This record gives sequence, structure tokens and C-alpha cells, in this order.
Amino acid sequence: MSLLVVGSVALDSVETPFGNVKEALGGSAVYISTAASFFTAPIRLVGVVGGDFSKKHIEFLEERDIDLEGLQIIEKEKTFRWGGRYHYDLNSRDTLFTELNAFERFDPVIPLSYKKTAYVCLGNIDPVLQRQVLEQIQTPRLVLGDTMNYWIETKPKELTDTMKVMDVIVVNESEARLLTHEPNLIKAAKRIIAIGPKVVIIKKGEHGAILVTNDTIFSAPAYPLENIYDPTGAGDTFAGGFAGWLAKTDDLSSENLKRAVIYGSSLASFCVEQFSVDGLRDLTKLKIQDRYRSFMELSRFDER
Amino acid sequence: MSLLVVGSVALDSVETPFGNVKEALGGSAVYISTAASFFTAPIRLVGVVGGDFSKKHIEFLEERDIDLEGLQIIEKEKTFRWGGRYHYDLNSRDTLFTELNAFERFDPVIPLSYKKTAYVCLGNIDPVLQRQVLEQIQTPRLVLGDTMNYWIETKPKELTDTMKVMDVIVVNESEARLLTHEPNLIKAAKRIIAIGPKVVIIKKGEHGAILVTNDTIFSAPAYPLENIYDPTGAGDTFAGGFAGWLAKTDDLSSENLKRAVIYGSSLASFCVEQFSVDGLRDLTKLKIQDRYRSFMELSRFDER
Repeated sequence: MSLLVVGSVALDSVETPFGNVKEALGGSAVYISTAASFFTAPIRLVGVVGGDFSKKHIEFLEERDIDLEGLQIIEKEKTFRWGGRYHYDLNSRDTLFTELNAFERFDPVIPLSYKKTAYVCLGNIDPVLQRQVLEQIQTPRLVLGDTMNYWIETKPKELTDTMKVMDVIVVNESEARLLTHEPNLIKAAKRIIAIGPKVVIIKKGEHGAILVTNDTIFSAPAYPLENIYDPTGAGDTFAGGFAGWLAKTDDLSSENLKRAVIYGSSLASFCVEQFSVDGLRDLTKLKIQDRYRSFMELSRFDER
Repeated sequence: MSLLVVGSVALDSVETPFGNVKEALGGSAVYISTAASFFTAPIRLVGVVGGDFSKKHIEFLEERDIDLEGLQIIEKEKTFRWGGRYHYDLNSRDTLFTELNAFERFDPVIPLSYKKTAYVCLGNIDPVLQRQVLEQIQTPRLVLGDTMNYWIETKPKELTDTMKVMDVIVVNESEARLLTHEPNLIKAAKRIIAIGPKVVIIKKGEHGAILVTNDTIFSAPAYPLENIYDPTGAGDTFAGGFAGWLAKTDDLSSENLKRAVIYGSSLASFCVEQFSVDGLRDLTKLKIQDRYRSFMELSRFDER
């Protein structure tokens, strides 16, 4: 099935204890689309860049078969730039700079050819824009949304309104707690369900992820990587793998949601093994399948 | 098979956001023995209390069929007392007081009848005492040990020596990192294996536990409890359930180590549902079996 992805397209400068990159391809829409492209087509990207956005990045996305009709290129502006430095344990980071540039006045206009898209993935942007996107799509089959602390704190009402039209929300631990004022993650997930989304996924980084619905709780492990080079984009890659698998299979049963979590986790584990989107560049379906099986191996135990 | 447990026997005063208890039964040897008693017998406890140790606590342990020949009662002393207050999210706590009392000069003398014990569980005490216990046991089949930040920081050399004779070590995340100066938990586990233990279990509280050996990595989820009343003793209960299951089955295969992790996790999940050892008082084998199956349900996904 078709998948529409809206979010940021960015040039990221990242420092980790293991190295650094300058102005590398990044942004939520890029990570989500790239991850999903291993499962489904067409993928329709909605985003904005400046005139300085390199042709080689366009080519990378086109090679992944991502439809770029919805990518606005504003020649007189510059592309969104973000700089960050990860701490020793890679679990926390400082933002060094944020230059919104073309992204500042992002007006997500959905091309006519995108209007009938079955699956919609709303990357982490202003919840008002997320809803604006949705209003331009004809009855999507599934809407998955992401958000962040900034929107929870500055636009709580708008975010709540947008959450009402999300089927799946993907948040991390601290976002789940901030959103609900509830330290217990299972309770937090249930409170989020009461707001709107039928499926809540809480990403826990090195501790994996949990999926909660009204009748299912699923706990997915993290892949035991010894070397994580760059955590940037892991959450978006997870969301892209998850949404891509659902769009491919068009099966919203509990069992298939669990598989989608493991595919999302698999993609994310490849992402963090290299800087920027490099961990996804040489990826193959075979490698993804192998990693899926490793996740089984990692968490399986037998009856007694 | 027989299981020997050495550790503290204490009276705990605990405050959590959900209530408090004063001078309730606690201590590592108590939690470990009680948890293990659901699986194996005989269980031989080695510890020390003062003359003020209540008869009802003795009766509780005897009802659980725990051999108390190794429990020294020093009439003129008082029992070890610990007081702690948990924070809002239950993941951190402040120690309010520690009165070692009879525990201060604990000299673990192993009764003759305990000397041929197959499984040995060394609760969190001075690593010098842990080794002193081991020297009194005739070639145990398996030695499981626990430790804490305090010993890692104050007796690193003695701890390393004791770790060389442990088959299994159970630590939490921060202990694993402190012990190895390695933020990545998988790398930390492998460094611990290089010191001595063949099996490393890292407890991650609300994120479950991982088991690492030279050829296996197993990730166990945490049971998704919405109400955790008192986390005190959860780690010891885990260790007791783990060691008890191994002693019962006397099977050290990877598959059985995984089952032992899930049984340990099951017991711990019951422990934290009530204060002190109350969560283990009314427990039955049937309830444990049900929870084991819930853990399967929680982490299982199928092939695709």
C-alpha cells in the first residue's frame, strides 16, 4: 500500500564519542521514508529544503524509490540544519544549534497525486501542521504520528487535538511521562490511549520498545549492539520500519503489529551502526530478515 | 538439589509513594531463600540476627521450609535495620538510616550439615565473607553471587578475587557499568565474563533483565505492572527465583538458564506488588506458572 511521510529534511552535524559528521543527510522524513522503502511502495515524501540541498541527497532518495513530488525546494532559502553532541553513554545529547531556515515557514501542501494515500506517517512537526496534512488526505487507512517534548510543552491543546486523529502514536519514555504526568509507562500508555490513539508505542532506546493497545502489551528487546556510532534518527527509522511493514502487509492484527515493532527495531539497529543514513545505504531485505530472526533468538524461551 | 543462601536478615522501614512499613522482614538472605523455596529444598540459610528478631519471622521462614540451623541469633545484639524512601518514579531511593547491629561483625560459620550443598547463592555481603563462605563448602556445583556499588568502590581487589570463583553474577545496570567503566551493557557483560563468571545477568528494573554468556544473549522483559508498591528486595527475589529454579532442575543449559531468568523475573514481579515479603506470602506454584506464561505472551512474536 502507499505511504505518505511528512517531516523534516535536514543537514545534521553530529558528534559522538566515536566520530563526527558535518552536514550529513538527516531529518525525520528522510529516516522514515528510507526505512519504509525496504518494505513498501510508493512512498510519498512531503517536506521542504533550500536551494543548497545537494543533488546527491535527492539521488539517494530517488534510488530508494521515494516519490519527491511533495518535496518543496525553496531556492532562495537554506536547508534546515541541526547540530548535536552525544554524551559518553549515548543516552543523552546536547543540541549545539538549530537553524530552521526553509523549515521555519514549512507549509505542507499535499500534491494531488498524494491525496489518496492509504498509510500516513506524521513525523515530528508542529501538531497544527500534522493536522493540516491529514485534512488534505482522503480517509487514510492508518495514521501514525510522532511528537516531541517541545510540542507537548508549548502546544498541549493542539497536540491533544491531533492525537485524537492518530491511530498509532510513537513516543519515547520521557515524552510518554511528560504527556501524562505518570511515571509508570504502562499507565502512561493507557492514558494516551484514552486521549485517542488505539496503539501506543513507547521507545526505550537501549531497552527496546513496548507496544500497548486496549487488549495487548508487547515488549520488544533492543538488539544487543556493542558499537553504536550515532543514535540520530533511530526513532524515526523505527517508525519508518514499523509503518512500512504495516503498509506492505495491510494487516492491523495484534500479531502483525508485533512483527512491525520487530521490523522497526531491526531497521533502527542498522541505523545506529553508522552515521547519518549510512547504516541504511547498503541494507538488503536478506540482512533485515536475518536481524528479525536474531530478535527472535534474543527473546525466545520455551515452555516448562 | 540443595541450595545454600548467605546474606543479610534485616528489619526494613520503607516509604514509597504508596505507603510505608516499619521494621518489616527483609534482607537479601530472606528474599533469596523465600523466592527459592517455591522451587527447591532443602534451602539452608546462613545469616545473623539479634535477640529482638521476632518469633513470627522465624515461623514464616520455617513455614517456607527453610533450614535455619545457620541463622545465628546473638541475644545481646539487635537485628540489622535499614530505612529507605523511594522517589516518585520508584527508580531511585534514598537510604534514611543503616544500623548494622549484629550484622556488623557477621562471621558466616557454615554448619556441618550445610557443607555438602550443591548450589550456593552469595547474597550482597562483603566479598571477603563471600569467599570465606565458599571455602567452607565442598565443591559446589554452581556459585551465584551478588554485589553492590559499595563493594565495587571500597573492595575492588577482593571483589575481583571472589568473582573468579562465581559461576553466575547478578548485578544491576549501574553496578555493571561501575565495575567495568563501560557504558555499553553488552560490552560490560563481556568484560565481567573476562574476570571470571561464565554467566552475567544484568537487572534493569522496569526494563527487565539480560543474560549474557560467551555464546548466548537473552533479553527478558519486565512484567508490565501498573502498580508497584515496594521495589525493596526485587533483585534478591529475582536471584532467589533464578537460583531456586536451577537447583530444582539441575540443568545448566542455555535454554534452562533462560527459563530461570523468567522464573526469577516472575517471582520479582510478585514481590514488588506488596510491601516487604508480603507479595511472596500467598504465592502458589500455579500463580507462578501463570505469570511465566504471561511473560511468554508478552514477548512472543512469530516468524514472517
